[in-house]
Amino acid sequence: MEKVWANINAVLIADDPKTFVTRRISETNLEFGGIRGDRHFGITSKADSRQPMYPRGTEILNRRQITIVSVEELDRIAEELGVEAVLPEWLGANLLITGYPELTKLPMGSRILFKSGAGLICMGENQPCTLPGDEIQKHFDDHEKLSIRFVRAGYKRRGIVCAVESPGIIHENDEVQILVNNFKNPMQ
Amino acid sequence: MEKVWANINAVLIADDPKTFVTRRISETNLEFGGIRGDRHFGITSKADSRQPMYPRGTEILNRRQITIVSVEELDRIAEELGVEAVLPEWLGANLLITGYPELTKLPMGSRILFKSGAGLICMGENQPCTLPGDEIQKHFDDHEKLSIRFVRAGYKRRGIVCAVESPGIIHENDEVQILVNNFKNPMQ
Repeated sequence: MEKVWANINAVLIADDPKTFVTRRISETNLEFGGIRGDRHFGITSKADSRQPMYPRGTEILNRRQITIVSVEELDRIAEELGVEAVLPEWLGANLLITGYPELTKLPMGSRILFKSGAGLICMGENQPCTLPGDEIQKHFDDHEKLSIRFVRAGYKRRGIVCAVESPGIIHENDEVQILVNNFKNPMQ
Repeated sequence: MEKVWANINAVLIADDPKTFVTRRISETNLEFGGIRGDRHFGITSKADSRQPMYPRGTEILNRRQITIVSVEELDRIAEELGVEAVLPEWLGANLLITGYPELTKLPMGSRILFKSGAGLICMGENQPCTLPGDEIQKHFDDHEKLSIRFVRAGYKRRGIVCAVESPGIIHENDEVQILVNNFKNPMQ
């Protein structure tokens, strides 16, 4: 089992009901269900287009509690779009991480562990949709078609979704240990 | 995304506090957390030796709500042990399935969907320990070292653990649809 140290550059919350866009906070308490007050908080959530095997609106287990993106992958998205920067806020991310460049490839079942005892479990890759692209477009009047182009630029760079496995306080600048799940000898 | 039909041969519950061994029931209601009354029921559970990244006894998200084994893999275990049969009860399984022979290889994030609307999500491979082997040994006085030999015989045949993604009634002989997660184009 590979262990990697990484750093939490930012902690963010989507607490404005009018938008999925997040804003930075210095710290938060991870609870079972995620970040209280965030639009994705909950042990359960409603099935949407991402879970077509259930009728839309069905109450299902929420595995998309916390969204994480990496500095390195956002840089590559910005580069491909030809814009100065792509901020985690515009993607609705809850955590911005650095030191694990190919975050989107982190296998399901991997852990992200904080010194407070808080722990996240990776529930898989996030898939790009056009909403973050619409948000990016708002910030770059001199560029065109960023909304559509984001879907391609964000492919396999969009980060991951996690569930809270163990509650606890987390802060910006926390060092975290990533335990990479190895399917040959899988972790439980 | 591969879709496979399979059959639920048995539904079982571990409701005797003195043992992990399960007993057959004709039907049950899957709730968020699993099967009420079963020893693994709960949205959360206590960390044990399977989650060495947390102090033992820490309250963590319960991804081991429902244990599933396949008829085909139990047959192979029995064959390797040289015994007549290995029953799902002795492994503490909650579901016995047939029609998906290499169940243990079912990737994390795959779904098992029932016609009632109930749905399970695969949280990975179960790993053999000596307890089921001890139980198997009790039934075969004329064989030796089944406890230790089970760990090897059960390797990659021990089945999977699941969480309830969508509640609902399930019955023995239910037909289920298995949606196999494909990491190239992962499901959410």
